[in-house]
Amino acid sequence: MAVATQRITLYTTKICPYAHRVEIALAEAQAEYKKYQIDLANKPEWYAPKVNPASKVPALAYGGPDIAPETPSPESEKLAESLILVEFVADLFPQASLLPEDPVLRAKARFFVETISSKLTPTYGAFVLRGESSERVLSGLEAIQDTLPETGKYAVGDQYTIADVAFTPFIARFKFATENELGKFTPEEGRRFVEALQQPKFLKLSAYIGRLLERESFKATFDRDFFKGFLQQRFS
Amino acid sequence: MAVATQRITLYTTKICPYAHRVEIALAEAQAEYKKYQIDLANKPEWYAPKVNPASKVPALAYGGPDIAPETPSPESEKLAESLILVEFVADLFPQASLLPEDPVLRAKARFFVETISSKLTPTYGAFVLRGESSERVLSGLEAIQDTLPETGKYAVGDQYTIADVAFTPFIARFKFATENELGKFTPEEGRRFVEALQQPKFLKLSAYIGRLLERESFKATFDRDFFKGFLQQRFS
Repeated sequence: MAVATQRITLYTTKICPYAHRVEIALAEAQAEYKKYQIDLANKPEWYAPKVNPASKVPALAYGGPDIAPETPSPESEKLAESLILVEFVADLFPQASLLPEDPVLRAKARFFVETISSKLTPTYGAFVLRGESSERVLSGLEAIQDTLPETGKYAVGDQYTIADVAFTPFIARFKFATENELGKFTPEEGRRFVEALQQPKFLKLSAYIGRLLERESFKATFDRDFFKGFLQQRFS
Repeated sequence: MAVATQRITLYTTKICPYAHRVEIALAEAQAEYKKYQIDLANKPEWYAPKVNPASKVPALAYGGPDIAPETPSPESEKLAESLILVEFVADLFPQASLLPEDPVLRAKARFFVETISSKLTPTYGAFVLRGESSERVLSGLEAIQDTLPETGKYAVGDQYTIADVAFTPFIARFKFATENELGKFTPEEGRRFVEALQQPKFLKLSAYIGRLLERESFKATFDRDFFKGFLQQRFS
């Protein structure tokens, strides 16, 4: 376990891909931290006033006394927004190498993240939770594949970085939902997604996704049964 | 002049607040670089294929041989997206201190940037160029003021950072357009904006904005006459 200079409490929600990013980053850093599950349908009354005024997950409390997550201290710093928290973890734990040393590779990692933010994350709720067509998801994935480097295991080379962290929770959920036929999308659209990813056109992306989902930090932080239960309860 | 390890060419456009961010960052770093103006209404045919496939400004070429910006070399790295380029400049020139050393302050600077991106930048075109009401701009500015720290000259304290860089070109253009009554907005909406910023409610924000617009890096990179000419030609 890596110990940050100060205490970390993460407010998270298992089904949330944004919050999942921070859990993966903390796992990569082998960070010691407290985790508190926020029920998005029934948030504790202290959460918005004392942790995150935007009332969203993830949020992170840093520093302050060693107390229960339910009684956040005004002495800790409260930080929010998944991508900012991932960079924060990268800054706190440089030994995890989540940010490349080279400024050009850092910029490329951030550009990959920007591609995820503009082309893929808006399609997650639209496709899986609201049943829109898979077209926009697939063209987002094409843009992401085009951003991959010629060689290298991950988004900007052989080093696993913030770029990979940003993508993993989303692609994992897209795959899990379609492969288990659980979501608001029609069975045809679900199959279209699964088959598209098997086409030669997506060979490079699929190999990359395979490597992401083999990563220990992902496997240790993705509760498949919980996610399946959530989708079943909502859609089957 | 600060010399980066490799050559920098910036592709920019004077009227563009996004591109202006990178010019401010480079001025703060006292970086030596080549600047090439892209006419957005009449882009050179080599720009998209050889510099930025998205065909937008700003873009930056880093490294490669010492050649004219019009003949970009495949040997230089091509980077894009204003906020990514500002972080790139901060990474290349640490002596400019555009990023705080403290990870918490870095996260706060990035959170301030995120507030600008979600609450203010989308209102610039809407209000100044398309004439929508000033309401969304003013509520964006309120959110920005709420994000300012209790004390300190700038967005996250006494140090001028990427957060200030991200805000400056936008607020400068809002102020210039409304104070000169040049834009698609109605005269009433323009006055409403100018008067709102003079209200006691916006005292803290106004003082902060005053400090931003006094900064040498801003004054050296904002061509008031050019921007005025652009607005006059389009709106008067």
